[in-house]
Amino acid sequence: MPYFDAASSAPLHPVARQALLASLDEGWADPARLYREGRRAALLLDAAREAAAEAVGCRPDELVFTSSGTRAVHSGVAGALSGRRRVGRHLVLSAVEHSSVLHSAAALAAEGGSSTEVPVDRTGSVDPSEYGRALRADTALACLQSANHEVGTEQPVAETAEICAEAGVPLLVDAAQSLGWAPVPGRWSLLAASAHKWGGPAGVGLLAVRKGVRFAPQGAADERESGRAAGFENIPAIVAAAASLRAVRAEAEAEGARLRALVERIRAAVGALVPDVEVVGDPVRRLPHLVTFSCLYVDGETVLHELDRAGFSVSSGSSCTSSTLTPSHVLRAMGVLTEGNIRVSLPAGTTEEEVGGFLDVLPGVVAGVREKLGAPASAPPSPARHASLVVDALGRRCPIPVIELAKVIGEVPVGGTVTVLSDDEAARLDIPAWCAMREQEYVGEEPADRGSAYVVRRLL
Amino acid sequence: MPYFDAASSAPLHPVARQALLASLDEGWADPARLYREGRRAALLLDAAREAAAEAVGCRPDELVFTSSGTRAVHSGVAGALSGRRRVGRHLVLSAVEHSSVLHSAAALAAEGGSSTEVPVDRTGSVDPSEYGRALRADTALACLQSANHEVGTEQPVAETAEICAEAGVPLLVDAAQSLGWAPVPGRWSLLAASAHKWGGPAGVGLLAVRKGVRFAPQGAADERESGRAAGFENIPAIVAAAASLRAVRAEAEAEGARLRALVERIRAAVGALVPDVEVVGDPVRRLPHLVTFSCLYVDGETVLHELDRAGFSVSSGSSCTSSTLTPSHVLRAMGVLTEGNIRVSLPAGTTEEEVGGFLDVLPGVVAGVREKLGAPASAPPSPARHASLVVDALGRRCPIPVIELAKVIGEVPVGGTVTVLSDDEAARLDIPAWCAMREQEYVGEEPADRGSAYVVRRLL
Repeated sequence: MPYFDAASSAPLHPVARQALLASLDEGWADPARLYREGRRAALLLDAAREAAAEAVGCRPDELVFTSSGTRAVHSGVAGALSGRRRVGRHLVLSAVEHSSVLHSAAALAAEGGSSTEVPVDRTGSVDPSEYGRALRADTALACLQSANHEVGTEQPVAETAEICAEAGVPLLVDAAQSLGWAPVPGRWSLLAASAHKWGGPAGVGLLAVRKGVRFAPQGAADERESGRAAGFENIPAIVAAAASLRAVRAEAEAEGARLRALVERIRAAVGALVPDVEVVGDPVRRLPHLVTFSCLYVDGETVLHELDRAGFSVSSGSSCTSSTLTPSHVLRAMGVLTEGNIRVSLPAGTTEEEVGGFLDVLPGVVAGVREKLGAPASAPPSPARHASLVVDALGRRCPIPVIELAKVIGEVPVGGTVTVLSDDEAARLDIPAWCAMREQEYVGEEPADRGSAYVVRRLL
Repeated sequence: MPYFDAASSAPLHPVARQALLASLDEGWADPARLYREGRRAALLLDAAREAAAEAVGCRPDELVFTSSGTRAVHSGVAGALSGRRRVGRHLVLSAVEHSSVLHSAAALAAEGGSSTEVPVDRTGSVDPSEYGRALRADTALACLQSANHEVGTEQPVAETAEICAEAGVPLLVDAAQSLGWAPVPGRWSLLAASAHKWGGPAGVGLLAVRKGVRFAPQGAADERESGRAAGFENIPAIVAAAASLRAVRAEAEAEGARLRALVERIRAAVGALVPDVEVVGDPVRRLPHLVTFSCLYVDGETVLHELDRAGFSVSSGSSCTSSTLTPSHVLRAMGVLTEGNIRVSLPAGTTEEEVGGFLDVLPGVVAGVREKLGAPASAPPSPARHASLVVDALGRRCPIPVIELAKVIGEVPVGGTVTVLSDDEAARLDIPAWCAMREQEYVGEEPADRGSAYVVRRLL
């Protein structure tokens, strides 16, 4: 039963398990106490901090352990913004950051600050000079992920850090997806990460704040972790997190190369095996273990369910799998197809056979879902019967509006238009994406009584 | 090597250890995911929430898991204050709350709010009607611990909750020290607790918010735990926390009675075996496993060190054991002696023999420290030589000012005064406390060039 969602949470690394068990008996006492149990706990905490700092590439006294990666981002952003309050209350971030960064930006906005989202290209990458142009005199902090969690694209962190450093703006790097693979290069100022992404236990994040970075912890604090992470230290989990970080790093080069080849195989095979599919994200500058693709005429939730039944656990950024009914902000910012989205992220140890099994199953699963939804099987065969057509897909959810469009495009002559009425948020992204994939012309969106009218001109 | 500091952190309960191990393999995935690993994690989380809610006495949907007890208090106070922002920004708390509550009050003050500390009596208990009188029209929230963490005194929570409910003010109960022993009685509105205090793992707190209580989570949030506890859920630790809470509750009545008798033995023996000692806290309305006493002419740090060498791990609220150099705010609020303070809190399973061993060792340790410090061995023998005396203890730390006072009190005639010059914060508490213990008259404190002048009149 292969689990292919390591980017959500990785199974516990054997070293993490060992270290956790060993330190349950040694690390439960309060490390601030003077008696032997306390001193022992403090020694474990110190050693874990040293190991983690070495892996991050910072000094031990620059690093604190938080209760999660999310908490590290929240505390890091809030503390850095507050530390530079005099400079201003402006935040720069990429449009494809993790929700923890977006929520931090929302919290800033609720307090009267503002932020600028730097757009990304179709691969999901920011342009460092464009990022630099977003920096203002009142910019207190800049945030950039090391690599994207949904599509795997690596960001130009070192170049962006250089530009930020020259502008005197601290850069916080969300390294949650990449820290298990390598240290983050360049002159970053703050760094956040999450242990359960690299096979450590849940309950441990880390926040590094370089010496010299102005930082004022927000909210109620206490004296633990330099006042930057309140609450009793979770030492057994911290020890396990540090030990597994060291362990995955030792394996990173070989395992990274192996998984990179497996992902390469998936990237190539998906396009060949599944019709009407778009593989997204940078094919080269990417995380070794992650690949994302979107399938036309398919809804993500049903695909996930069918893949789960077939024994494969994957994730999706499609709106039909989310409770918010809005498609992934990452795919939206990239301007790529959001329907039928599937993210495959391989945990360490994934075998050739498991990947082969997935590729065996995938085409049938997608075809089955398409059949159920009545998706057009191939190019439109029917003769042109109307000069133009209006399709009413109001009240229908993704991927129905695109399916209805594809079904009738052949019924108008080349040069004729199909107008799709839709109130589904995903249609705004997926109709233009469909046009790009099928080489039809996307004319544009017009307001309608309900939802919007999306106009498409048949080109071939 | 007996560990007698369960109030700081209890060793992992065997049931917690078992549950943690079992759920490491089942509970590492994201419970928000639709695939089997996610569903399995979600089932574990749901079951843990039900078990914890049952032990707390609330509905499962009223309870969220936080990353620590401190975080539960911080989030609970901030969310409740914000939820009643329209009512006002005033907080009522007892003077002996845990630092997490005090830090929350400080955060409120930093944002322009205010708070009222309700004083306690010499046993450490608040008076419910006095507490009620502190409630104002603009009081947004009231906080009261279920039992004190330093002296073990149980607070009249049910009575206070009734008064708060009648005034329409929600009451947050910090139940960190007592939840393992019993549910908190009465009509409380919010409740916070910490798993590592009842033998659960570190990294788990819980926050219950009764339906109908206005609550607005503060800071950056996310969608997990009803938006009240950001960050990936630490499910193996949560499962272990819930399982061990259930386990300790099943043992609570028998183990509580057993430890209560052991504590009774310590309370009686300490007064008999060690001269010049004050046992503090309510002798009856108290936690079963905790006793605190203070020894004249002794510094807490040296006593802790000597007890550690003799194999006993205990805690102290004396200023000489803290990095802040201020004595415990709890002992100060109670108006009791702070020097030579020792807190003994017995973990489950503590034996008669271990307690006996401690009582065998304690008198010698205290006597040894007193001898080193040159403390007066007994009542002052020397004939009166001066009508009054001034002792210069400037720059000397606790317990030296009190030792110097005790040494010379016999040199003035009955009715004469000794004035102690001291700039040690503890002297303000400990000189009056010494007078009460030795039945001398504390005349008062006068300002001095440096520090203060404390005037004592000899009565016998």
